[in-house]
Amino acid sequence: MSLLVVGWVAFDALETPFGKVERTLGGAATYFSVAASFFTHVNLVGVVGDDFTRKDEDIFKGRRIDISGLERAAGKTFFWAGRYGNDPNDRVTLATELNVFSTFRPRLPERFRKSRHIFLANIDPTLQRSVLEQIHGRPHLVGLDTMNYWIEKTPVELREILRHTQVLMINDAETRMLSNEHNLLRAARHIFSLGPRTLVIKRGEHGVLMTRREGGFFAAPAMPLEEVFDPTGAGDTFAGGFLGYLASCEEVSDAAMARAIIYGSTLASFAVEDFSVERLLRLTKDEISSRFNEFKKLTHFDVV
Amino acid sequence: MSLLVVGWVAFDALETPFGKVERTLGGAATYFSVAASFFTHVNLVGVVGDDFTRKDEDIFKGRRIDISGLERAAGKTFFWAGRYGNDPNDRVTLATELNVFSTFRPRLPERFRKSRHIFLANIDPTLQRSVLEQIHGRPHLVGLDTMNYWIEKTPVELREILRHTQVLMINDAETRMLSNEHNLLRAARHIFSLGPRTLVIKRGEHGVLMTRREGGFFAAPAMPLEEVFDPTGAGDTFAGGFLGYLASCEEVSDAAMARAIIYGSTLASFAVEDFSVERLLRLTKDEISSRFNEFKKLTHFDVV
Repeated sequence: MSLLVVGWVAFDALETPFGKVERTLGGAATYFSVAASFFTHVNLVGVVGDDFTRKDEDIFKGRRIDISGLERAAGKTFFWAGRYGNDPNDRVTLATELNVFSTFRPRLPERFRKSRHIFLANIDPTLQRSVLEQIHGRPHLVGLDTMNYWIEKTPVELREILRHTQVLMINDAETRMLSNEHNLLRAARHIFSLGPRTLVIKRGEHGVLMTRREGGFFAAPAMPLEEVFDPTGAGDTFAGGFLGYLASCEEVSDAAMARAIIYGSTLASFAVEDFSVERLLRLTKDEISSRFNEFKKLTHFDVV
Repeated sequence: MSLLVVGWVAFDALETPFGKVERTLGGAATYFSVAASFFTHVNLVGVVGDDFTRKDEDIFKGRRIDISGLERAAGKTFFWAGRYGNDPNDRVTLATELNVFSTFRPRLPERFRKSRHIFLANIDPTLQRSVLEQIHGRPHLVGLDTMNYWIEKTPVELREILRHTQVLMINDAETRMLSNEHNLLRAARHIFSLGPRTLVIKRGEHGVLMTRREGGFFAAPAMPLEEVFDPTGAGDTFAGGFLGYLASCEEVSDAAMARAIIYGSTLASFAVEDFSVERLLRLTKDEISSRFNEFKKLTHFDVV
């Protein structure tokens, strides 16, 4: 089944201890789409400016990504510049220019409106809401990302979209901020009362913790890597692997959710090996299977 | 096989968001012994003052803990006072009084000198070394803990004891400090060049990462808990469950090491549910098995 994603397509300028790049394709919707396309067909909705070239577009070609919802507007594409230190968590934002995104209102092509799996990447909750209003019928699964800015500035709008969200995917700090609870279990319970049935807490180098309203936890460490070349987009790549795999499943069982967490972690572990989606573009299905199995070695033990 | 532990036996004054206690039994050797005694016989070496009562001693009774190496000295027992905030990682030390520990020189009773499994808790590397010098023959496994203070103040002595260490058990910050490497894989490689064959990185609420010189990783999350009532001693309890289980094994295979990590994590998850070793004293073998299996549910996934 196809998976709709709405979010930023961006140009990034990045500096990490391993290298520097002046202009590379980025944005949540980019990372998400490329990751999810390994598992399912993706419908992308976003906006780019007139600096977005045919070559940039080619990144989506030859993959199961429909970019007919990628609007072209006059002006420059969203731009983000950031620098990372030796600790990938130490990120300094050097520039954020909304550009064409500042007036963007998502418009879904007619055939996207039947989407049953939807990912609303981290954008204004009002825009996230407007996407759902264009959907015909009731989707199976709405995944949502947000950030401290929206939690603080637009709490009412955020609560409204959370009522329509099944899977919330945020980091520990956002979980605590949204719930006003330090303990993640109590934080999760609070969040379940707002709408979501599943909370996926992204913990960067410490991996992921998933918990569900009906109870139960699933935790996955991050794959230990020699070099985190560029951590940009790891969370969105995770979301793409996670929801892409789920969209490809007949039924969303607990077992499928656990595998989805591992597929998301697998894709994210590749994404950080190079700038932008470079590593994902070179990625093969065999490499995915092989790293999926490495996760098994990393975490499984036997009971004597 | 019996397991020798040398370290602090202490009185702690603790304040957590859940309660307050003026004087309770603490110290690495205490937590370690009680945890390890679920799996093997423990020989404890340490020192207490004349404020250490029969009632304090009773904690070790009825367990497989031999305290004939627990020296009584004139003066007060080592004392530590600390306060925790809502984030269990935010710990403020209010007082540290070495007391009788300041002149302590470990003296092993003759029958302890044949120990094949040894845990040198976090004390002066020179004292740790003096313990090994009293051991007859070559031990199977020496586990070691240390801290930023010794890494900084006694680097030469620490390197000497590391040459005789098989399993180093420290936290992420100590791993980075000891190796001068931010990346944990490169940090581990550096540490292997100093002696240890196995590095167990304790990451608090994020669990544990084990890596071995021959390659390979094993990661375990911490069990998500509603309340971390008192995090004091979690790391030493982990070490007790880990080394206690290993000392009970015929052979130290990769599979046994992985199970040991889970037993250590299991014991630590109980220890933090109450002050001091209170929860461990009430703990049953059935509860251990049951939480061990919860770890399986928390981390295992199937490959379709």
